[in-house]
Amino acid sequence: MPPSRTERILVIVGGVAGGMSAATRARRLSENASITVFEKGPYVSFANCGIPYALSSTIPDPDSLLLQTPESVKKRFNIDVKINTEVVGIDRKKKVVLVREKGNKEGEEVPYDKLVLAQGAKPVVPPIEGAEGENVFQLTTIVDLEGVKEYMKRRKVKRGVVVGGGFIGLEAAENLTELGLEVVVVEKGEHVLPPMDRDIAEPVHEELRKNGVRLVLGKGVEKIEGDGAVVEGGEKIPAELVMLVVGVRPRTGLAKDAGLSVGKNGVTVNEQMQTSDPDIYAVGDMVETEQRVTGQRKVLALAGPANRQGRMAADHIFGKDVSYRGNVGTAVVKVFRLTVGITGLSVEALRRLGMDSLWVSAHPPDHAGYYPGAHPITLKVAFEKETGKILGAQGIGTAGVDKRIDVLSTAIQAGMTVFDLEHLELAYAPPYGSAKDPVNMVGFIGSNVLRGDVDIVHGQDLTPADLKEMQIVDVRSPNEFSRGHLKFAKNIPVNDLRNGISELDKDKKTVVYCQVGYRGYLADRILKQKGFDVANLDGGYKSVVDSGLKDLQEAPQKSG
Amino acid sequence: MPPSRTERILVIVGGVAGGMSAATRARRLSENASITVFEKGPYVSFANCGIPYALSSTIPDPDSLLLQTPESVKKRFNIDVKINTEVVGIDRKKKVVLVREKGNKEGEEVPYDKLVLAQGAKPVVPPIEGAEGENVFQLTTIVDLEGVKEYMKRRKVKRGVVVGGGFIGLEAAENLTELGLEVVVVEKGEHVLPPMDRDIAEPVHEELRKNGVRLVLGKGVEKIEGDGAVVEGGEKIPAELVMLVVGVRPRTGLAKDAGLSVGKNGVTVNEQMQTSDPDIYAVGDMVETEQRVTGQRKVLALAGPANRQGRMAADHIFGKDVSYRGNVGTAVVKVFRLTVGITGLSVEALRRLGMDSLWVSAHPPDHAGYYPGAHPITLKVAFEKETGKILGAQGIGTAGVDKRIDVLSTAIQAGMTVFDLEHLELAYAPPYGSAKDPVNMVGFIGSNVLRGDVDIVHGQDLTPADLKEMQIVDVRSPNEFSRGHLKFAKNIPVNDLRNGISELDKDKKTVVYCQVGYRGYLADRILKQKGFDVANLDGGYKSVVDSGLKDLQEAPQKSG
Repeated sequence: MPPSRTERILVIVGGVAGGMSAATRARRLSENASITVFEKGPYVSFANCGIPYALSSTIPDPDSLLLQTPESVKKRFNIDVKINTEVVGIDRKKKVVLVREKGNKEGEEVPYDKLVLAQGAKPVVPPIEGAEGENVFQLTTIVDLEGVKEYMKRRKVKRGVVVGGGFIGLEAAENLTELGLEVVVVEKGEHVLPPMDRDIAEPVHEELRKNGVRLVLGKGVEKIEGDGAVVEGGEKIPAELVMLVVGVRPRTGLAKDAGLSVGKNGVTVNEQMQTSDPDIYAVGDMVETEQRVTGQRKVLALAGPANRQGRMAADHIFGKDVSYRGNVGTAVVKVFRLTVGITGLSVEALRRLGMDSLWVSAHPPDHAGYYPGAHPITLKVAFEKETGKILGAQGIGTAGVDKRIDVLSTAIQAGMTVFDLEHLELAYAPPYGSAKDPVNMVGFIGSNVLRGDVDIVHGQDLTPADLKEMQIVDVRSPNEFSRGHLKFAKNIPVNDLRNGISELDKDKKTVVYCQVGYRGYLADRILKQKGFDVANLDGGYKSVVDSGLKDLQEAPQKSG
Repeated sequence: MPPSRTERILVIVGGVAGGMSAATRARRLSENASITVFEKGPYVSFANCGIPYALSSTIPDPDSLLLQTPESVKKRFNIDVKINTEVVGIDRKKKVVLVREKGNKEGEEVPYDKLVLAQGAKPVVPPIEGAEGENVFQLTTIVDLEGVKEYMKRRKVKRGVVVGGGFIGLEAAENLTELGLEVVVVEKGEHVLPPMDRDIAEPVHEELRKNGVRLVLGKGVEKIEGDGAVVEGGEKIPAELVMLVVGVRPRTGLAKDAGLSVGKNGVTVNEQMQTSDPDIYAVGDMVETEQRVTGQRKVLALAGPANRQGRMAADHIFGKDVSYRGNVGTAVVKVFRLTVGITGLSVEALRRLGMDSLWVSAHPPDHAGYYPGAHPITLKVAFEKETGKILGAQGIGTAGVDKRIDVLSTAIQAGMTVFDLEHLELAYAPPYGSAKDPVNMVGFIGSNVLRGDVDIVHGQDLTPADLKEMQIVDVRSPNEFSRGHLKFAKNIPVNDLRNGISELDKDKKTVVYCQVGYRGYLADRILKQKGFDVANLDGGYKSVVDSGLKDLQEAPQKSG
């Protein structure tokens, strides 16, 4: 007699986020199933997202990252976890996996009814000289962490080079700095945080530098030596420690060898997380799932989706009607005092994909300006030209950024438009927000643009020649103007604009701007109604500065 | 020739949130319109939400609440603001308002094409002896604030009674405490924050007491004397200052006198914010708008909706196709270290309305437990029994509460269900959340309940007799058990449950519980699969304690 649905033999490959979520959910659904987790490494169910923080004293005891042990998992969930045990092959006909314990040459066959692959992704080690040196580390496992910590204890480490300016690279840079190291971040792209736009990344550059981190941008590492890294062009950055965090690559070898379908990067799965073999599921950083904004299937290495996919695979194995909805790619990172977040796609990514979209930005305070501790955040939203449907949002600031990103992520998942953001009712009291929340603000601006109430222009779409040709009106105060302004700008404060309108040439294409966009918007409305062909500079002068558009700026006038 | 659409005469009654939003939006839409704002009081466009904080040194300079002056409004927006000027009548036939300046007996007729009423609501002064005394204050205008501050300067005020434990009452209590006063809050209901549930309010009580605030609950004030307030039952609370903040009542007199339709409480408006006279709009705290969860038309005194309604009235006046979507009633308040928030309806409110709903609660940490500074938040979500559609959510904690309320408010506005919350992709990094965010957690729990994977029971639905009759299993550690537990509970830690199952009686209705609900859920699944008729105590023992259900609790066993 075949085993009943609740008496299945379930084998899970990989004992971290996705794998353990699948295993524990499976047990909750079936007390009778045999559930075994094979984990290649010595630890199970560890909090890999906390690893960068365990470099410094932010998380003083790395053991706090070990959420479970094989023993505790056995006790609580009656799940067998075999650590230091690798699954090296799958015989799909016989429905067995071949497993090999560390140090053992002999493998063992283990049968399964259903198999869940949750092998994650491995750090990319670029093919450069010295990349395998004893001074070079990755930062994805507890073993990596122990290696770095042991090395730092053994060697007098005063200087570190972090290769890669992505999320983990910046977390590493911050925590090495906290440890007292001199840190250099080397990033091949023009800015750190490649999934984000330059005007979001630029304030991050500033924050890193303010905290003593040196940045080498637009250059890769050519060679790593025992005493430092050599970047493109030949400069050598002396350092005792090199952290190589340039991305990860899905572990697809086992799946490929078993003849499972693999896409461009990750294992192919359907909405139930089944691979091309319906008895084999795959979840987490190793699979390609749908990017909901683009419809493309992509690998996404994030803990939240991995956990939910693991849970869902177990649900499907035990007969539940579930389907994965894809990802929007919502992520956040702390960089010293700053919080930087994204959901959906950046403007740069949308442009690369040729997606027809508009975007607006604002720099409102995170909460009511009169309540202590208010600081501006930058919020940027991209949306479809035709419908206003939100395609992506980015935020940066010292407080309240994760909140707005979560709201906008929820909005994207609900298929909302910028018109919906106008209406959104959000919690307001002076310590938390404004009666018109930053999310409403970007909704107002986006809707104004789509309804044709205002035209905007982005600094990055302007050249110095444009500025010379057009009529540029800075509507800030003379004081603000004197601290730096757009080239060729004429200063008429917004409050004087109605009276000063005769100074302007109605036949010239006109751009108005202020510091963050609001007064420019008022000026735009005044001039547009007077018949001017006018556009407001989106996000104001601050966005031009944040975008690093130095050739549009006139340096501050020195006083005295 | 009639004036063209952009040359209208617009008159606005009331110069704060809704009124000023209407006025400034109108100007942005029309440079040619004549726009006049009449404000009864001496100030325009002040931040009334900041007033409680200006009692203490949190906002040291009350002037910072004055966002505009009539002069600055004129300069920037070319809007005429007449302060100290009351609109005392509307002649709808002649299309004029009768206005009267303070101190003037003579009124003046001012014509309008379109009229916007934004008169707000006035504080309720209950008909009790002494309510008009010189020691009694409200807290809704800058004039109120100035009155209190002047009084406190003049008199040696050491003790204050705050009558009313709503949002503003608690903000007042906090700020008077900050000032060094001994503060007593008198609230007629059984708990503070009447829109919320008792288990959400109870930790607020604790926080208030911890900060030296005395609470008198379930009692009204009978009389106010020069040296204190007398509460029901005759107790006199000595105090030099009495703050009367028991709610507000829409200012409908002007509308009523003009023959406009007025509902049970506020002025009746359509989705374009038009009153029964299409040339007269009304917005903000004085109107009834649709509560989206119940479909009822209600007065809602919140700044965000008032601002958006004002903006929308102007949009409609100038020909835009807009309609107001109603409110979900999203609000947040800071009470010392705590943040308390709500969106949609509380469970108590749903029960009062007889709406068929379920609810679940959880107490997860606001961010990853291993990252410093994590504290539990309580999150409670109510939803339709049939569909899982979210009807309301409440949260309380020291951090991250406003974020979750905003996400859940967005979810309600998008018509999401608890099943959608399972899938919600939210920004995660250890300082900000968890791979399974608290919002996902309540989604998991709610979905488990609706799918029949787990049965739950709420502490408030249990009696001591139930506990005696049923089989109650505490699956926490013996140590936790010894610090207090449910009456008649048997202690079998979850990790021992599979082996200890023979100790339990399968024929008895069984309730399992732990501290916050998770281990209870695991135990529920184990027992359910073994054929038990079992339910998990929602929110665990913590929810019973937070709900103040003392008769269900066995006092901690004293040691030694």
